[in-house]
Amino acid sequence: MTVIDFTAFIERLASASGEAIMPFFRTSLGIDNKNTGRDLDPVTEADRGAEAVMRRMIKENFPQHGIIGEEFGSERPDAEYVWVLDPIDGTKSFISGMPVWGTLIALMRHGVPAYGMMHQPYIGERFSGDNGAAFYQGRTGRRKLGTRRCASLADATLFTTSPRLMNEADRAKFAKVEEEVRLSRYGGDCYAYCMLAAGHLDLVIETELKPHDVAALIPIVHGAGGIMTTWEGGGPERGGRIVASGDKRLHDTVLKMLTA
Amino acid sequence: MTVIDFTAFIERLASASGEAIMPFFRTSLGIDNKNTGRDLDPVTEADRGAEAVMRRMIKENFPQHGIIGEEFGSERPDAEYVWVLDPIDGTKSFISGMPVWGTLIALMRHGVPAYGMMHQPYIGERFSGDNGAAFYQGRTGRRKLGTRRCASLADATLFTTSPRLMNEADRAKFAKVEEEVRLSRYGGDCYAYCMLAAGHLDLVIETELKPHDVAALIPIVHGAGGIMTTWEGGGPERGGRIVASGDKRLHDTVLKMLTA
Repeated sequence: MTVIDFTAFIERLASASGEAIMPFFRTSLGIDNKNTGRDLDPVTEADRGAEAVMRRMIKENFPQHGIIGEEFGSERPDAEYVWVLDPIDGTKSFISGMPVWGTLIALMRHGVPAYGMMHQPYIGERFSGDNGAAFYQGRTGRRKLGTRRCASLADATLFTTSPRLMNEADRAKFAKVEEEVRLSRYGGDCYAYCMLAAGHLDLVIETELKPHDVAALIPIVHGAGGIMTTWEGGGPERGGRIVASGDKRLHDTVLKMLTA
Repeated sequence: MTVIDFTAFIERLASASGEAIMPFFRTSLGIDNKNTGRDLDPVTEADRGAEAVMRRMIKENFPQHGIIGEEFGSERPDAEYVWVLDPIDGTKSFISGMPVWGTLIALMRHGVPAYGMMHQPYIGERFSGDNGAAFYQGRTGRRKLGTRRCASLADATLFTTSPRLMNEADRAKFAKVEEEVRLSRYGGDCYAYCMLAAGHLDLVIETELKPHDVAALIPIVHGAGGIMTTWEGGGPERGGRIVASGDKRLHDTVLKMLTA
């Protein structure tokens, strides 16, 4: 059985998690919750509900597989196949009603991210990749993703979720890169990596990432022809300080600046 | 004829502008444009196409009305009714493939924004208001919008498109407010005001805004029970330095801090 056999199952996971999340997105739309008295936390409810439904489906279909989830921890993390789940990447966007969050689903084989999907159930779009290729599926159909050429920082669009999430030393290094780029933008979480894969931006630089923040995005970025490593150039699958680039030449330049 | 008669026409304007814009959103999706040789500028094409179609419709239906547009300037700006058009608010999001931009359509009467709409054609959602009420219309139906209560900065979620857009003096004042809030986020443009109207965040503070950046948002924010003024507390319709708040008590606190 090869990894490719799991793609239809991943689509089902994405659909089921989306159904679990949607009732909690923008729940305060209108004035209904103004005076409930108790502290509603829709993002936690949505996160837990979506992870629970995905775990149940995985256990039913692949009882021998491992699962690592943001909400309910690890089971069989040393299995050949391990699912890595982050039901809502971008919780701060979620609670602010902004639609730039996504559900991240990764399938690791022997510790390497083999297949990844980012699903946005409100907008109705999915980005997926298996390191060899990457695809968009949504309102405008299904299309192959490819990063764009960008050899020079002076031509680059840079994203980071927020420099305020970085420690002081990392922020200083980030600022050196930021000074050189054509356009720097904040926000986006998983969306920034998918837009890099789609050829709309050139660089994502972040820190303090967890394995479940990156596992699904790696096969998408790599499948689209991009490169994603730690700031030191190592494998990105454990998270930490991460750089994703659409062009290898840009990546080399940025790694030098971040480790200088 | 009262302002309310124009609402069906505004819906048609939004639909027509969306059709003009959509072919240009994420046009580099895939690898088609990698080697075209010429410098494509999809956002300018989309901006101009959408404004042209809206201007044509307005002139056909209301030849006596004025029009102020971002792309093609002003005609009859002193008419009783003046349309203020910003086909793509959030161009930096647009060119990065991020779906948090919108088409802003305002109808001014005697210089006062009487009706406003923010339309996101990719996601398929519209936010509208007439100062008396505000509505969402989209994937999850049609709902009335209302801001949420938030009396204290310590409980507030704050948005700004980017502090990097502010001059040094304004940024220092903004930073004082930012230090006190529960959550500060960057990015969003027109979306931040609509999410404030929908009760998902509490404060938007920006500078250097043009009349076409704010005209459509004022009747939405006010219609949802919020308040939107300049930093000095004056009318917001000319743009400049703007604060929008979901709660009057919070607004008073912030104006004091920004003008101290």
